[in-house]
Amino acid sequence: MPQDSAPSLLHDTAPATPGEPPAAASRPVYDAAFDWIDTARAARHRAGLVRTLRPRPADSPLLDLASNDYLGLARHPEVTRGAAAAAHRWGAGATGSRLVTGSTELHARLEAELAAFCGFEAALVLSSGYAANLAAVTALTAPGTLLVSDAGNHASLIDGCRLSRARTEVAPHADPEAVRAALTGHDGRALAVTDSVFSVDGDAAPLPALAEVCRAAGAALLVDDAHGLGVLGDGGRGALWAAGLAGDGDVVTTVTLSKSLGSQGGAVLGPARVIEHLVNTARSFIFDTGLAPAAAGGALTALQLLRREPQRAARAGQVARELHERLTAAGLAAVRPDAAVVSVRAPSPEAAVRWAADCRAAGLAVGCFRPPSVPDGISRLRLTARADLTDAQLDTAVGTIVATAPTA
Amino acid sequence: MPQDSAPSLLHDTAPATPGEPPAAASRPVYDAAFDWIDTARAARHRAGLVRTLRPRPADSPLLDLASNDYLGLARHPEVTRGAAAAAHRWGAGATGSRLVTGSTELHARLEAELAAFCGFEAALVLSSGYAANLAAVTALTAPGTLLVSDAGNHASLIDGCRLSRARTEVAPHADPEAVRAALTGHDGRALAVTDSVFSVDGDAAPLPALAEVCRAAGAALLVDDAHGLGVLGDGGRGALWAAGLAGDGDVVTTVTLSKSLGSQGGAVLGPARVIEHLVNTARSFIFDTGLAPAAAGGALTALQLLRREPQRAARAGQVARELHERLTAAGLAAVRPDAAVVSVRAPSPEAAVRWAADCRAAGLAVGCFRPPSVPDGISRLRLTARADLTDAQLDTAVGTIVATAPTA
Ligand SMILES: Cc1ncc(COP(=O)(O)O)c(C=O)c1O
Ligand SMILES: Cc1ncc(COP(=O)(O)O)c(C=O)c1O
Repeated sequence: MPQDSAPSLLHDTAPATPGEPPAAASRPVYDAAFDWIDTARAARHRAGLVRTLRPRPADSPLLDLASNDYLGLARHPEVTRGAAAAAHRWGAGATGSRLVTGSTELHARLEAELAAFCGFEAALVLSSGYAANLAAVTALTAPGTLLVSDAGNHASLIDGCRLSRARTEVAPHADPEAVRAALTGHDGRALAVTDSVFSVDGDAAPLPALAEVCRAAGAALLVDDAHGLGVLGDGGRGALWAAGLAGDGDVVTTVTLSKSLGSQGGAVLGPARVIEHLVNTARSFIFDTGLAPAAAGGALTALQLLRREPQRAARAGQVARELHERLTAAGLAAVRPDAAVVSVRAPSPEAAVRWAADCRAAGLAVGCFRPPSVPDGISRLRLTARADLTDAQLDTAVGTIVATAPTA
Repeated sequence: MPQDSAPSLLHDTAPATPGEPPAAASRPVYDAAFDWIDTARAARHRAGLVRTLRPRPADSPLLDLASNDYLGLARHPEVTRGAAAAAHRWGAGATGSRLVTGSTELHARLEAELAAFCGFEAALVLSSGYAANLAAVTALTAPGTLLVSDAGNHASLIDGCRLSRARTEVAPHADPEAVRAALTGHDGRALAVTDSVFSVDGDAAPLPALAEVCRAAGAALLVDDAHGLGVLGDGGRGALWAAGLAGDGDVVTTVTLSKSLGSQGGAVLGPARVIEHLVNTARSFIFDTGLAPAAAGGALTALQLLRREPQRAARAGQVARELHERLTAAGLAAVRPDAAVVSVRAPSPEAAVRWAADCRAAGLAVGCFRPPSVPDGISRLRLTARADLTDAQLDTAVGTIVATAPTA
């Protein structure tokens, strides 16, 4: 173990050099417990599925079609000022669980405005959308509850199902009749869980049909609106608003503050008694430090900006549809977008990686999804429309993606 | 469902009033799916275990012995300036998963400085300490792995065990021989998991003995140093440094950026191959938006400040020991602190709640832990020492706690 304060540390398998303290050189090496990692690593390399982090500079020259900053608010000066002002006024951290010292009046205000905007009675803010999904799924189920989960759901909903003590049935993707079949004959509490807009392909869940099926069975409905908030519904009020389900007594939704609202954090929205139940029982709420004030302040500012400029929501959808039309016209296998995510299929993981790299070399950042991050094993480029993309940027993006497309 | 944009929304069980749009008045009510919540709520009320959020103002007049801001850095002007500057320079959010657009050079720098400070080869920053624990436990285990988890571990480690596909054995609290017994005879990979400082009672895990037991069995050791970083070890380098285990090839640690570093976020620290494995496999890392720049910037500034003012770490421990001594001398059942958390037993949940409320009425914020947040069912006040508490504040705190103590 290095006992000095050298900024760069030696792994203790490194050969002893004359300058090293004798203690370090004579300490035994305890590496064997993690030797299995080398095997896993080699397998990843053979499969061409190695992921690496690529830290970006503050002023990246790349045109961004990879982030989830759908409304272009993450770096909007009003939003960053809102975040900075909150850090100054409230501190860099919330300092404790929301149940102890971590609830500020800023959190309460964000909750009230989020609930009002999306049309729900109450809201609860957590440190991430991931934590919000864990909270909602686990707190709304118990042993004996039947959980019916769409096969395309986000990892955080799946982890919520795994953490819950309910029995989970995975329903085929976007198939209300399959949900009906799964609910039929179950005696007791039931909860159907779905993304509103699926993160990989950007397609929307059939929410009205799902709600009908749930109601017929007396089941509740939980919808993860991470990719709907800010894009769908009147002025970006979300998928539940668009479906006429916002505020209904048997509907709960989760959102993230990290995509359209350009910040960090998540929230659960629903009837007040559901929110109160989460405050009392949701482990990922109770045992987690409250969201940092800067993130709450940034999200609140973004929400207020969206209220003032509701056309941003429609513009994100419009850019996505235009992207899809032009890529399809060029012969690419793009999925018709229901929100701001446009997915384009690639023939293989290797081709997808090469395609994304070629785009990057040409100045365009695109997402690249491949196994194990895709439920169906199909690799694709994932493009995100931003409300603030100009027509010229859209031209450049389409041109680059088409020019670098694999010839298959 | 409210279709207007009124800021305050009616629950749909509210009686229709003349001014309401007819659609809302004639819509059926779909509340039944959540009626079970009323039963759970009534049971909580009967048991006196209702939790409510109490949003605090920016300038609370209370003396704070409830937060986890051990070094008094959350509102340190240098730290809040660091957070604000990061929001301005990098944006209010990270805009995507760390694997897509969510890694900035700021994240990379924080990771390098955290690893160097704590004496580990590499570090990975996540959106919370909770997410870091989920990531470490799930990515370092597989079906067939034996997980041995201390009975007093934090909820996030427990949830990590529940999410993992490993077999979990819960070992009695702080008992290396029990860990040895659990590991004995297991054939294959094994991981022992423990808090360094237990969050409820503030007692420390016997890390050197645990490491010895793990090594004898070829098991790896994962230590959650949420309450050790910034308080234990030379200048606050953490419990693993203090135990002479930092940087060892079979040891991984998780930290949070939300306590001593006054911000938000978490990190996993360990051998580079372990960190690379997490980048490739940890779901709560891959499928979560990167930590907001302001939180990363706040934590990095706090870390640099701690390097410059290492005496803050020792002072937090000293304040805790003084608190303990004076409360014990006054006849209260306080647990000897190993770090900055001082736990004082209360005769019942009701007495604990009343005691905390009386402290609050007298101007002192203290934590109140009771079932189900305590593993052993014993309610207590939880006091946290801060490095920046003055002697006069310490006098006030002790005086208030003693004066309001339940007579039992
Ligand atoms: C559908 C969906 N739900 C939840 C999340 C998690 O939200 P967060 O990144 O705020 O944790 C994401 C993405 O990150 C997502 O795509
Ligand atoms: C021991 C321990 N581990 C992990 C956590 C979670 O860290 P965070 O609040 O950053 O999610 C906490 C408290 O919040 C804790 O007390």
